[in-house]
Amino acid sequence: MIGQQRHRVVVIGAGFGGKYATRALRKAPADVTVVNGTNHHVFEPLIYQVATGVLSPGEVATPVRELFRRQPNTETLLGWVTDVDVDNRTVTATAPGGLPYQVPYDTLIVAAGTTQSYFGNDRFAEHTISLKSVDDAVELRSRILTAFEMAELETDPAAAARWLTFVIVGAGPTGVELAGQIAEIAHRTLPGEYRRIDPAQARIVLIDAVDRILPTFTPGSSAAATERLRRIGVEVRVGARVTDVDAAGVELAGGERIDAMTRVWSAGVAAPPLAARIAEATGAPVDRTGRIRVEPDLTVPGHPEIFVVGDLASMDGLPGVAQVSIQGGTYAGRTIRRRLTGRPAGKPFHYFDKGNIATVSRFSAVADLRGLRLSGLAGWLLWLGVHWAYLPKGRNRASSLVRWAVAFLGSGRPERAVTARQAGLPSTQRGDLRPPASHNSPHEQHSSTTW
Amino acid sequence: MIGQQRHRVVVIGAGFGGKYATRALRKAPADVTVVNGTNHHVFEPLIYQVATGVLSPGEVATPVRELFRRQPNTETLLGWVTDVDVDNRTVTATAPGGLPYQVPYDTLIVAAGTTQSYFGNDRFAEHTISLKSVDDAVELRSRILTAFEMAELETDPAAAARWLTFVIVGAGPTGVELAGQIAEIAHRTLPGEYRRIDPAQARIVLIDAVDRILPTFTPGSSAAATERLRRIGVEVRVGARVTDVDAAGVELAGGERIDAMTRVWSAGVAAPPLAARIAEATGAPVDRTGRIRVEPDLTVPGHPEIFVVGDLASMDGLPGVAQVSIQGGTYAGRTIRRRLTGRPAGKPFHYFDKGNIATVSRFSAVADLRGLRLSGLAGWLLWLGVHWAYLPKGRNRASSLVRWAVAFLGSGRPERAVTARQAGLPSTQRGDLRPPASHNSPHEQHSSTTW
Repeated sequence: MIGQQRHRVVVIGAGFGGKYATRALRKAPADVTVVNGTNHHVFEPLIYQVATGVLSPGEVATPVRELFRRQPNTETLLGWVTDVDVDNRTVTATAPGGLPYQVPYDTLIVAAGTTQSYFGNDRFAEHTISLKSVDDAVELRSRILTAFEMAELETDPAAAARWLTFVIVGAGPTGVELAGQIAEIAHRTLPGEYRRIDPAQARIVLIDAVDRILPTFTPGSSAAATERLRRIGVEVRVGARVTDVDAAGVELAGGERIDAMTRVWSAGVAAPPLAARIAEATGAPVDRTGRIRVEPDLTVPGHPEIFVVGDLASMDGLPGVAQVSIQGGTYAGRTIRRRLTGRPAGKPFHYFDKGNIATVSRFSAVADLRGLRLSGLAGWLLWLGVHWAYLPKGRNRASSLVRWAVAFLGSGRPERAVTARQAGLPSTQRGDLRPPASHNSPHEQHSSTTW
Repeated sequence: MIGQQRHRVVVIGAGFGGKYATRALRKAPADVTVVNGTNHHVFEPLIYQVATGVLSPGEVATPVRELFRRQPNTETLLGWVTDVDVDNRTVTATAPGGLPYQVPYDTLIVAAGTTQSYFGNDRFAEHTISLKSVDDAVELRSRILTAFEMAELETDPAAAARWLTFVIVGAGPTGVELAGQIAEIAHRTLPGEYRRIDPAQARIVLIDAVDRILPTFTPGSSAAATERLRRIGVEVRVGARVTDVDAAGVELAGGERIDAMTRVWSAGVAAPPLAARIAEATGAPVDRTGRIRVEPDLTVPGHPEIFVVGDLASMDGLPGVAQVSIQGGTYAGRTIRRRLTGRPAGKPFHYFDKGNIATVSRFSAVADLRGLRLSGLAGWLLWLGVHWAYLPKGRNRASSLVRWAVAFLGSGRPERAVTARQAGLPSTQRGDLRPPASHNSPHEQHSSTTW
């Protein structure tokens, strides 16, 4: 065996797919390299709680190398993967600072996830913020909290109203959960803290072109969630298509305009540019969102050495949810291990649908579980149990529970610090007297605030 | 009394001085406006724990308007104060977005704090990071954690060594506590997570021009802290003057150069530009750091309506520590209340020195308390009790205790998420394929990382 190198597996991405694929390779006779664009794995289902001040970034983001600390065959590299050379079996990534580096592989697992789709309209992307990463979450948190501060400073009532209007486009779980939490901030956290505005006057508008919210849930759950959202003060606008977005609001088909300084985009899925590169190099078919159509064993057609798992894989219309990524990642890792230990190929990938769950507000969630439908408090307790169970073990689970008690039993939000940079104000560090450059502004437009 | 307006007090800054001044005005017959450059009050003595991943920003930063929620005579405005018109008694501030606004006052409390002094050398400021704000802390945290990531990616041993070298200039409490925590990250948190480098090989150098660390402490405490720092792997360089700083290291008098990609500046105090404006307008004398020399009642000479409290006030050589700000702020607030309720002026401000305390590492602190000197575990337990007592009451104290257990009983760091923006990598949001612009780089210089 002298001179023969161990099999090299490269995993692109440390989301749910990459994490569980790597886990499944723990005892495989292979050297595993995980390349991820940040230093952390994100527990995406709770990222809306970072955006709304309930949890800290560290409570939903576990360092990738901490995840695989006790997995000696695995190393972690920080880098943004820009290309895959399928002929030479090499991944190219960019290190912080901009320099490229290469990592060779024998087997590749692509778990790069998807990005938001703006349906080809750059203005939608330019004038909205999405909620996919810790970057997004801390930025959105600062915008939500700063919007109330700006409204307090405004002397023009119309301008104040714009600051107090929050539009969320896309009523999947992220949009629904975010809308519910912004409503709780406006109605439960902030009242009493302001002297000129009433935070409870905030207008929260949840928009979707489809005719019901949570379209992947049962109609009964959609209806229950809609009713609960309306009760806590969210305007639910279904069957409403956004035709334009600018720096001060959105326009709907039919001509209605909603002025809003905070605009969130959580509609539509698109494959990242890396998917197009891989599809081009391998000749793999893609679906209309650019996701790669995979074989029943999650490999790219004609390239059994390349697996695609998670949101980026297109197969049988499976939804882009954490459970598909977890099960797909585990399947890919186990398949590679079988191959390397000389066992015969297993069965094709089969997704076991455990169900859907989404929180609407404190003490209220909707859940569809293999025939069982729960809503209200029962759904919420299930949500609590499931998320507690799936949160990365150990250090941050205890503090998360403390935070949930603060936010849901109480009315507080533990994480409300907005940095000077985020607010577009000078940092005290240099004592700079100049007003900040306009591109640092947290929002693109404002009216006069002198009185 | 019809038509007669209530007395208006404006407080510039919501650090310790501004917070306690405003608190003391709770029952005063006055309308109080607090203008602060961020939305939060920072518990500065613990900010080094944010920079080193122990606490989240929310655990050391309390929203200003939450502090004064139950104080009906007080309102909070977000803004960066740029000028004071002492003739027309008006404060000018800049709102997020850049527009100026004015706030009139009858009595003014200036609690704007100080900034770092770079002794007139812009290169020192350009090539170091300080640790005064939440902005600084989250940025420094990302630099410390990313430095280890970069070292792992480096193929050139000299470049890797530069990434693994951390220089802290200034050995006051902030410098000492930071050096100790970086050592704990290197020796206790990260080992086992890296495959190519040994994080414990990190070199942590604490530099001061003075001949001992913690110069405001007793020589015995300085010696105890020095010994402890050396034991946990910190190089203590006292009597060493930094003559130059660049993008890859520092130079000391005598010609020695220390290559280091992470350079922290915590030496020297300077007044912010606002102090010069006020001094010029009032003719108030300033000390050599630009701080305003105040009367025994903390007012500006000839301007009994302007108080200066906290770090920005120069009086009898009082140190720039939290206790001076707390007591000075309280004194100013009470003095104003006495005036407004027609009571005679009280005694001049007298600072009651409760002592000094600084943590060196887990289970080890030094404390000088009115004749009593504690070090080691006894000092650390005192530190724990004092900080627990002074941390803002309520929601975040419980989670802080959980975090301390994780970090000090265990070896973890709960808050290690570095955003893509901080790391200088593209955010997944837009799926951008281009390498980031070099000005987004977390550090100014790097060597080749291709292999």
